[in-house]
Amino acid sequence: MTITGDQSLMREINRMAVVRVIQRVPGLSRAELAKETGLTKSTVSLLVQDLIDEGWLLESDVQATGAIGRRPTPLFLDGNRLAMIGADVSVDSISALTVSLTGEVVNGASEQLSSTNPAVVIRRLALMIASLVEQARADDRRLLGIGVGVPGAVLDQQGVVKLAPNLPWRDVAFQSDLSQELASMGVAGLRIQVQNDYDVAALSEYEFGEAPLPDPLIYLGLGIGVGAGIIVRDRLFLGAEGYAGEVGHSILQFEGPLCSCGRKGCAETFIGQRAISARIAGNTSEVLSVDTIRQLLERGDEAALLAVRRSGHYLGVLIQNLWTYFNPGRIVLGGPLCDLGAPFLDSARTCLESYSQDCGLQLPEIQLSRFGSRSVAVGAAALVKHALVRPLDLRSRDR
Amino acid sequence: MTITGDQSLMREINRMAVVRVIQRVPGLSRAELAKETGLTKSTVSLLVQDLIDEGWLLESDVQATGAIGRRPTPLFLDGNRLAMIGADVSVDSISALTVSLTGEVVNGASEQLSSTNPAVVIRRLALMIASLVEQARADDRRLLGIGVGVPGAVLDQQGVVKLAPNLPWRDVAFQSDLSQELASMGVAGLRIQVQNDYDVAALSEYEFGEAPLPDPLIYLGLGIGVGAGIIVRDRLFLGAEGYAGEVGHSILQFEGPLCSCGRKGCAETFIGQRAISARIAGNTSEVLSVDTIRQLLERGDEAALLAVRRSGHYLGVLIQNLWTYFNPGRIVLGGPLCDLGAPFLDSARTCLESYSQDCGLQLPEIQLSRFGSRSVAVGAAALVKHALVRPLDLRSRDR
Repeated sequence: MTITGDQSLMREINRMAVVRVIQRVPGLSRAELAKETGLTKSTVSLLVQDLIDEGWLLESDVQATGAIGRRPTPLFLDGNRLAMIGADVSVDSISALTVSLTGEVVNGASEQLSSTNPAVVIRRLALMIASLVEQARADDRRLLGIGVGVPGAVLDQQGVVKLAPNLPWRDVAFQSDLSQELASMGVAGLRIQVQNDYDVAALSEYEFGEAPLPDPLIYLGLGIGVGAGIIVRDRLFLGAEGYAGEVGHSILQFEGPLCSCGRKGCAETFIGQRAISARIAGNTSEVLSVDTIRQLLERGDEAALLAVRRSGHYLGVLIQNLWTYFNPGRIVLGGPLCDLGAPFLDSARTCLESYSQDCGLQLPEIQLSRFGSRSVAVGAAALVKHALVRPLDLRSRDR
Repeated sequence: MTITGDQSLMREINRMAVVRVIQRVPGLSRAELAKETGLTKSTVSLLVQDLIDEGWLLESDVQATGAIGRRPTPLFLDGNRLAMIGADVSVDSISALTVSLTGEVVNGASEQLSSTNPAVVIRRLALMIASLVEQARADDRRLLGIGVGVPGAVLDQQGVVKLAPNLPWRDVAFQSDLSQELASMGVAGLRIQVQNDYDVAALSEYEFGEAPLPDPLIYLGLGIGVGAGIIVRDRLFLGAEGYAGEVGHSILQFEGPLCSCGRKGCAETFIGQRAISARIAGNTSEVLSVDTIRQLLERGDEAALLAVRRSGHYLGVLIQNLWTYFNPGRIVLGGPLCDLGAPFLDSARTCLESYSQDCGLQLPEIQLSRFGSRSVAVGAAALVKHALVRPLDLRSRDR
């Protein structure tokens, strides 16, 4: 960590340190904040006033009774005045949400896509976002930025979607194209960040979860694709090139079924929606929707039940591997396959409990995602907050 | 990151920021250091003088010729005056090394163990370390601390070996016992840190490797046990309880062979020394030494060749999985099995190259360990340096 000589950056670092501490320990007083941050009381007072003025913090009006003298005023994140827009670009639909600093969804819209042509998708998304921006202005909410989650590999520094096999896109300059479209609609000055969908979904859990937050935290996304977003030491973990967490393409069985990535036996070929569909339909040409599979389960269809249970069992194996690799404090399961319910999730748990018994170690905490089908959009909004409250480059090593 | 009000901690943070920058970019001048750290030139000058006085840095006496005026003096880490002691506790032997700040092994000793009783091991190790401490004093080298690598799960905050199945130890208060033994020999005042052996081996590569250092960096240790030490964003990655990187117990094939951990199909049961031995000997009762296996290979023993190649192939599968999970910048292979050479390592590479071709992605850099059989001892010394040059708690999230 370098104490920089740049005064304005130093001030921002301190301001955001205060925000992060209040997020971690809501209700602290200024005096407690000074102790927690190591800043002087007078510096804390100045920063807190500034943060209150700008809409980051609020003073609770809860007054202590009975105590002698005035009780110190507790401070909280303000969920009323600042917001981020988060967008979810998926294979067949787009959605965008306005999300408050404390994770409440304020406004939102979604639509089915008639085309996955990047220009069309970006144009439709820009219209949706422009409408949310107007609403936010009318509601007197200041927007901190726009985040976008995309099902693919993203060069986040450039905002370029390098490869999104299921759309299928390659080298789409998403950030600059969206920025241009928004400018043509009169929306300018909002920073746009693009990131992988499961990576941002992990941030929905992390930025808007209740303290104390476990670390590492893994969000495991389950749908056509299988992948993980991972938080390590308070930051999104991206790896050397940004592709960390591609756990759907770890080998679960050598010489297993052929995967869309070209390799054989990837976890996705045992767990993903395509694998379940192929087992039910007896062929790989058609991918059944999660709704269809769920209806089959409700009707007691034996093939569907077996296929879903099998997939759940392999999910247990994958989670066992995540457990040994990362020693996570919590694993969150999200994505459409979670809607398959007990036959899917109970099989995973049974498999994991048997591993846990065999080795005598306690399983990590495993939960369903807090925001369900909105995890990616809420997470894209969380990405904006995540980066802002960490003013040093998220990848910076020198800290 | 919090700018603390504690002046002495703040000074230490800045001092060590200077050391880390010089380690990353050797040869910088004071002016360049000021630019790189964001500190003022006068602060940098004071800190640098201090660090030179204490033995951390040295000024090169290389004088520029031909340039107009005096050239700024390049600064480097000083390999002559400070050192750390690193110890390797393995199943049948112990060793300890005195290692300079720049990674040179200055002195060392090792011995076979006649007993794995913790009291005996700790006593023998204390004698070895006490002797190295005396040598260091005679050589006028100041010691920064003592690091110990142990083949098991370590509660590093307490210095307790929670479980080392191959010794077999459970809940050994290693740090305090070693500290007492050393005190009884007149050695006191040196901080002792205990950590998992493959974790510290990763630090041998990271702290003493040549800049620029890849991040994440994974050290994969291959012997009776199979496990990884992982560096993420400039720090040792330990996970929620300190057990991250137990990749030998990830499932490589469900319902595979029974593992020593109680689970089935763990990577260790396909790759580790026991797996190779069992294939060669046709039973699991005896574990052949790596020397014996190598001699069999040299004699052209067909069963040994098949067994080693098979193990190497599965090593390729495990590396493929590490690749997808962590997107590492470099994977370093270490541990005794690396001595099996081409039949082992080439099989892994062939397997990986086929994955790489299938998916069209370039493999991460893969290397053999820089310190060979000394990786753990050198790494234990590196642990001391790693923690000292990062004065904020290595696990601290608020930075």
